[in-house]
Amino acid sequence: MYRLTVRDHVMIAHSLPDPAFGPAQGLHGATFVVEATFHRAELNEHAIVLDIGVATAALSAVLADLAYRNLDDHPDLAGELTTTERLARFVADRLAGHLAAELPGHGVTELDVVLREHPDAWAGYTRSLD
Amino acid sequence: MYRLTVRDHVMIAHSLPDPAFGPAQGLHGATFVVEATFHRAELNEHAIVLDIGVATAALSAVLADLAYRNLDDHPDLAGELTTTERLARFVADRLAGHLAAELPGHGVTELDVVLREHPDAWAGYTRSLD
Amino acid sequence: MYRLTVRDHVMIAHSLPDPAFGPAQGLHGATFVVEATFHRAELNEHAIVLDIGVATAALSAVLADLAYRNLDDHPDLAGELTTTERLARFVADRLAGHLAAELPGHGVTELDVVLREHPDAWAGYTRSLD
Amino acid sequence: MYRLTVRDHVMIAHSLPDPAFGPAQGLHGATFVVEATFHRAELNEHAIVLDIGVATAALSAVLADLAYRNLDDHPDLAGELTTTERLARFVADRLAGHLAAELPGHGVTELDVVLREHPDAWAGYTRSLD
Amino acid sequence: MYRLTVRDHVMIAHSLPDPAFGPAQGLHGATFVVEATFHRAELNEHAIVLDIGVATAALSAVLADLAYRNLDDHPDLAGELTTTERLARFVADRLAGHLAAELPGHGVTELDVVLREHPDAWAGYTRSLD
Amino acid sequence: MYRLTVRDHVMIAHSLPDPAFGPAQGLHGATFVVEATFHRAELNEHAIVLDIGVATAALSAVLADLAYRNLDDHPDLAGELTTTERLARFVADRLAGHLAAELPGHGVTELDVVLREHPDAWAGYTRSLD
Repeated sequence: MYRLTVRDHVMIAHSLPDPAFGPAQGLHGATFVVEATFHRAELNEHAIVLDIGVATAALSAVLADLAYRNLDDHPDLAGELTTTERLARFVADRLAGHLAAELPGHGVTELDVVLREHPDAWAGYTRSLD
Repeated sequence: MYRLTVRDHVMIAHSLPDPAFGPAQGLHGATFVVEATFHRAELNEHAIVLDIGVATAALSAVLADLAYRNLDDHPDLAGELTTTERLARFVADRLAGHLAAELPGHGVTELDVVLREHPDAWAGYTRSLD
Repeated sequence: MYRLTVRDHVMIAHSLPDPAFGPAQGLHGATFVVEATFHRAELNEHAIVLDIGVATAALSAVLADLAYRNLDDHPDLAGELTTTERLARFVADRLAGHLAAELPGHGVTELDVVLREHPDAWAGYTRSLD
Repeated sequence: MYRLTVRDHVMIAHSLPDPAFGPAQGLHGATFVVEATFHRAELNEHAIVLDIGVATAALSAVLADLAYRNLDDHPDLAGELTTTERLARFVADRLAGHLAAELPGHGVTELDVVLREHPDAWAGYTRSLD
Repeated sequence: MYRLTVRDHVMIAHSLPDPAFGPAQGLHGATFVVEATFHRAELNEHAIVLDIGVATAALSAVLADLAYRNLDDHPDLAGELTTTERLARFVADRLAGHLAAELPGHGVTELDVVLREHPDAWAGYTRSLD
Repeated sequence: MYRLTVRDHVMIAHSLPDPAFGPAQGLHGATFVVEATFHRAELNEHAIVLDIGVATAALSAVLADLAYRNLDDHPDLAGELTTTERLARFVADRLAGHLAAELPGHGVTELDVVLREHPDAWAGYTRSLD
């Protein structure tokens, strides 16, 4: 089983309006370092999982919709708690959609996204691709 | 599938009294950088795997029993070879017990613990939670 | 010449309302990983620059005033561009004040603060202590 | 389930003569930071997955055949695209052979190899051992 | 004293044809992770040392002339030993020229460049700017 | 001004028998990740500060005298508080002696040693070489 990982980052503001989050209920922010991993059982005809440039561009395109924004005002996240776990899924689902639209027949069968919010905490989400 | 990881560290002394360990048979020590990962299939009602503060406190509580000690004198490790692999399991099992006692109904189904002993070597242990 | 460095982090929101900052003019945020370094020519009577616990607590106390806040509303930063460079100085000056107040005769002669805003960019500020 | 990881690196030259690789078609090079992970369900009689020294020596022996070489001239890679994914498999397969030859009855059931080619991209390959 | 650092990387092939370099005399390669630090005593009118985007673009422009190349064939390095130290100076001098040409009056007084060639070795060069 | 850094690590046990150190008064241990930096104004005839292999071997030779030991029993550290700062100086002074003995005329004018004891704390010592 092969995999390729590319890394990027995004800087956002948000609040977590649920008493469970204590001080993080207030408006604050984060730099999320994002690692996206693409899995497939066999390599393609270029001996790769996916072109690194293509993978990097796909991740960058997905993150561009979050970059330098206050996620409290993001229409696609309205009414949601934008926790690290939730955002990991958001990025993974968007990446899956991006690959399906831009690169039909890509052969990637599984996608994993990690968001590192600070040196001592990170979250991830794994999903299959059809 | 979602996961959350928190990181901490612990500094201990120990010896590995088995000829297989060569110079590490003598009393020496280590800084273990510890990463604990909690898995669950769906997020809870706060859109998280586990509260980062709760996860950090749980790991910290488990490591407090090892911190600044000579593990050769630790009653719960008496007669054992405290290898990195063994200690990864020790931390994972203690974390599992801590979660069961302090946070019944936590929903975490799998636990993974990594202990990094130096930049070029680390060990891990994975177990399910009932 | 000796030095001691301790590391912590802080998560904040802010905006940079100057056309020079392009997309960063909007409200966004950052995780700043903060490294504070304390210099002195000779060690004290405990063979250290400063107690690691004391240094860590000092940095933590300074960062607590920024943590989980929108810096656009911070009274001590009103009307200022809270760039990484500016915040590095803010943290260094606060640390200097904290040491002077809490630890007179500390012997530290120079202070350096680095703020890492993402894996590919960071800023620092160095100052002497009287 | 237990695992042990050891890390090393190797510096090579190569070209990727396929138009898909754009500028990487020319002769260039890389430092690959290599992480090899060994899995087994239970620890051996020394309470380890594998001796760290043995694992480190095995990885080093495998990498020695690549170190400081132009992979375009490596007989065992002739006519192949030496992508990061392909090299991850090459290292994993060689490691598997090395363990089988040098350490029969080692008990390792799965092997994973990661090659980090730069801070923002890495690839991996996982295989079972018989 | 303030400073700003930006980071990028470049992948090259080269040889070091001097018996002092042992196995590195042959054609091999490296990923150099490059950190460029810009110093100035006071911040500019935007409360920064230099715009991060400008600094990143400057470093990227300088590295573009090395990227995916065999440095043995680079006309500006003909007959030279392209050691890490030498390349650190090459990058620093090019950056200085780039800033002077593209950003007259930039106010940066000192430049430092680090090239990390693998996790256990790196080299740096510091120079003043007129 | 040029510099070269090499990195290694060492695992030791020790105690800090001074009430100032709280829980670290007991026998515990550490992995110290050690970075040694060699400075010189101009490169030598091989276009380097020092051969990386020579620098790595020198650091390794110095650390070998500490590796896998209880520093409380080290004759050259008898009666001393083996703080991170003190050990940074110990390594730097030993390295200076090693270079003087093994590599007369080496041309290195300054030496800096950093000891990282865990991800959030490290200490350094800088000295000139005659």
